[in-house]
Amino acid sequence: MEAASRICELSDVQADYDSRAVPIDEVGVDRVAYPLGVLMADGTTQQTVSEAELVAALRSEVRGTHMSRFIEVLEAFHDRVDARTTLKMAKELCRRLDAASSRVALRFPLFVAREAPVSKELARMRFDCRLSSTVGAVGEAVAIGVGVPITSLCPCSKEISDYGAHSQRGRVDVDVVIANNGEALWPDELLRVIDTAASSPIYPLLKRMDERYVTMQAYDNPAFVEDVARDIVVALADDERVQSYSVVVANEESIHDHRAVARVRGGRGA
Amino acid sequence: MEAASRICELSDVQADYDSRAVPIDEVGVDRVAYPLGVLMADGTTQQTVSEAELVAALRSEVRGTHMSRFIEVLEAFHDRVDARTTLKMAKELCRRLDAASSRVALRFPLFVAREAPVSKELARMRFDCRLSSTVGAVGEAVAIGVGVPITSLCPCSKEISDYGAHSQRGRVDVDVVIANNGEALWPDELLRVIDTAASSPIYPLLKRMDERYVTMQAYDNPAFVEDVARDIVVALADDERVQSYSVVVANEESIHDHRAVARVRGGRGA
Amino acid sequence: MEAASRICELSDVQADYDSRAVPIDEVGVDRVAYPLGVLMADGTTQQTVSEAELVAALRSEVRGTHMSRFIEVLEAFHDRVDARTTLKMAKELCRRLDAASSRVALRFPLFVAREAPVSKELARMRFDCRLSSTVGAVGEAVAIGVGVPITSLCPCSKEISDYGAHSQRGRVDVDVVIANNGEALWPDELLRVIDTAASSPIYPLLKRMDERYVTMQAYDNPAFVEDVARDIVVALADDERVQSYSVVVANEESIHDHRAVARVRGGRGA
Amino acid sequence: MEAASRICELSDVQADYDSRAVPIDEVGVDRVAYPLGVLMADGTTQQTVSEAELVAALRSEVRGTHMSRFIEVLEAFHDRVDARTTLKMAKELCRRLDAASSRVALRFPLFVAREAPVSKELARMRFDCRLSSTVGAVGEAVAIGVGVPITSLCPCSKEISDYGAHSQRGRVDVDVVIANNGEALWPDELLRVIDTAASSPIYPLLKRMDERYVTMQAYDNPAFVEDVARDIVVALADDERVQSYSVVVANEESIHDHRAVARVRGGRGA
Repeated sequence: MEAASRICELSDVQADYDSRAVPIDEVGVDRVAYPLGVLMADGTTQQTVSEAELVAALRSEVRGTHMSRFIEVLEAFHDRVDARTTLKMAKELCRRLDAASSRVALRFPLFVAREAPVSKELARMRFDCRLSSTVGAVGEAVAIGVGVPITSLCPCSKEISDYGAHSQRGRVDVDVVIANNGEALWPDELLRVIDTAASSPIYPLLKRMDERYVTMQAYDNPAFVEDVARDIVVALADDERVQSYSVVVANEESIHDHRAVARVRGGRGA
Repeated sequence: MEAASRICELSDVQADYDSRAVPIDEVGVDRVAYPLGVLMADGTTQQTVSEAELVAALRSEVRGTHMSRFIEVLEAFHDRVDARTTLKMAKELCRRLDAASSRVALRFPLFVAREAPVSKELARMRFDCRLSSTVGAVGEAVAIGVGVPITSLCPCSKEISDYGAHSQRGRVDVDVVIANNGEALWPDELLRVIDTAASSPIYPLLKRMDERYVTMQAYDNPAFVEDVARDIVVALADDERVQSYSVVVANEESIHDHRAVARVRGGRGA
Repeated sequence: MEAASRICELSDVQADYDSRAVPIDEVGVDRVAYPLGVLMADGTTQQTVSEAELVAALRSEVRGTHMSRFIEVLEAFHDRVDARTTLKMAKELCRRLDAASSRVALRFPLFVAREAPVSKELARMRFDCRLSSTVGAVGEAVAIGVGVPITSLCPCSKEISDYGAHSQRGRVDVDVVIANNGEALWPDELLRVIDTAASSPIYPLLKRMDERYVTMQAYDNPAFVEDVARDIVVALADDERVQSYSVVVANEESIHDHRAVARVRGGRGA
Repeated sequence: MEAASRICELSDVQADYDSRAVPIDEVGVDRVAYPLGVLMADGTTQQTVSEAELVAALRSEVRGTHMSRFIEVLEAFHDRVDARTTLKMAKELCRRLDAASSRVALRFPLFVAREAPVSKELARMRFDCRLSSTVGAVGEAVAIGVGVPITSLCPCSKEISDYGAHSQRGRVDVDVVIANNGEALWPDELLRVIDTAASSPIYPLLKRMDERYVTMQAYDNPAFVEDVARDIVVALADDERVQSYSVVVANEESIHDHRAVARVRGGRGA
């Protein structure tokens, strides 16, 4: 006897007929904290902590879904995931819930060991990563995304001032739908694309000679949010593994209390 | 001489020609904290605090936008806004920035004076409101949305248990694109639709007899997230002012540390 | 007949005798969203949105407090408050709950109309404000605090680099317990103290000539978090209205993804 | 030659003499994201993601601290920590910075594999953990704390209603200073104390028979925030390893949009 979490033995409440004629696009669980083993480009597995969302469609004539099955699927797959794993999870949801479509999204931090540019002293820098997949009538899609802090320095401030130029911490989010028959695309690759477009990458640890280096590097590479976004788009457009992309660049302006933000979406045949 | 914030007198950096051939979908400011006077259904103005986003498209051949103009538009319109005001702001952005499209979004709390159901004692309850508009090649759209806390009580828990039933705080977000030639749609109307679909509305202040009332009301009206979403969709489908809608119902489960969530999108001809 | 929210007619559950011999230091409500009218230095009232906390002590022999009374006190006082109002609220809590001590804290944004330094163009800048009071065996205390975004520019980066210097957005929080027989101390006064200690104040709106001005002002006034904190402490030490203070300066480093932070506490006879 | 991050070769800006006569209580880094290996009670190490704070005192006559050394200490110790490790880190900070006092605090999620009460189906539940130490003139202190979600059911609502009783998710935070010569105190032990005081523990995964079980368990064990706090205090008072404690119980009320909260501090000789 299968015991689904919200099906009742005597009265199966979730299985009740629903007469409102409203299909539910997505129902399930979100903000689920779960441990995750993430497969990295070098074959190692990085242990991290994720926030998971798992949802599936529900036909109009059925009253409720079975919430416990979403957690069962997460438990079954959590210890070794890459982008394609979320596709397997989404398919398993469709199968177990008899659903026409589903979506699985995992968000988590990753750490990269990063050497300071001059002293070569090493520490770890966090960046955010997202893996997700959708399965449905219009086909399947697997996506990967990263969120990375950068240093940005304002080109106009540099140009119009006799000396100095305001800089600030920026945040870049790149999300990519992976081409169907393409090779794998790894989080560290997107991280490199973003760092290259920044006025300077950000470092967890800088000694005196390193701080001098990044100060002058940023001054030598001023970039508006528009500049950073465009450089990233140009890099992604060259990558055959990229089906479509979303690029968001946001500067936590040091001269204002708001953000300057630029967004571009695009892709092959989009 | 116009002095735009990031145009330089000697070298106009933003106006530089850009050869990367990447148009920017949206560039501007977000997370702008600004005071707001919001026009209410009864003709009064409620003073509140908003988080604003104002963005516009940028042609591929121009390097940068003029960030100060977004704030100027916000300052010009902030003291008396309703849903249609964001459309005026978006049009003004297109005009001042010579942009093909733009979007303005304001998010802010509103308060409603609410009497307890039995004692009739009065206090104020917060709910969230959003007003936004887009202007562009595909036309104009004006949207209004609210986020409202509710009480939900689980139908399955009630059915399968000899006594009791778990309840929790839920959160409902309804966002509506307003039909073009329709009458105004007010935040308090959406609030009422949501409260009606809940196991019980939430109150800021309950005396003993009120707590007894809402406890039994919730027990008498158990509802899954799917149920709440469907009841709201049915109500919106009857409203000719609604062009399209998004309904998100999320329960902060009292027996889990994650949320149960249901989402439905729909509309006329959608 | 008084009807307190959690006292029951037949069985008064909160009034039950409690044998565990554990007095409760503070019990009540927090994260209460409530509209607020804040009395300003110039005699005007600024309408804003607060997050309130109201708590009181509970004797060991009583099982529970009466939660609705906290909201009643908030409702009674919310439309016109200054720092001393929270003291009245705390005293009213002690009286109505027969409590030996209580605490009331209100947090909310305020806006100041700020002219750009050269163009004199005006827009509004948010800063955070806190008003609180405690009443108890050790006496009464009234406190006021503000949180203000600033621009900071690193002295070492400037010194060691051939050109440029990294700057970033900082955040300064100053909280002050007001001397008992002192005059009033207003939020805008603390704002001015903080702005003076910054490399540059932050502005909501800057035109080209303004951006040039603040870029060079920051470069001319480099300051570590330690510098900003010390300048503020020196200013507060001269103010007879200040009984004690807490100063926290935090830089959202533009070259790192963490904050640099400095904290100083002090006061008269402290 | 030592190369500290913010000491300059030609002009050592941080080492400048400071004439303002203001010692800094704490200066350093906070909101540092760092990977962490946490030693568990069973001898295993759980890999997680922490937010770290490392600060030290700075004498009045020195202008600035050396920020990079805080990250060096974090890097040196991060791969295997328990409560006592933060004490070693704090001592190392004092030594390397020639500081009279210092403080190290690590915050991170931990996961516990938890079986559903009837079906025994297993999934993972997150709870928050904190480890910290201070070193200074008044001696040393090592602290451990946890934050745990629980189910709470209102005793008054149950008593005054003909049927039903509102329940909600609660959050309990217990922080303990460990007695100097005491044995180790582990996060899972504090988790058990909290779960025992709840109306019901929270589970990541519940099947139908489990949901029935926890619904009735909560209804059979109604508890105010005051009740949960007192039960925890009684348990901690019996534990010789506990020098002092702070207990905070907060209910995300399902009938309100605010929290009910109770706080108790105490300890041996406190």
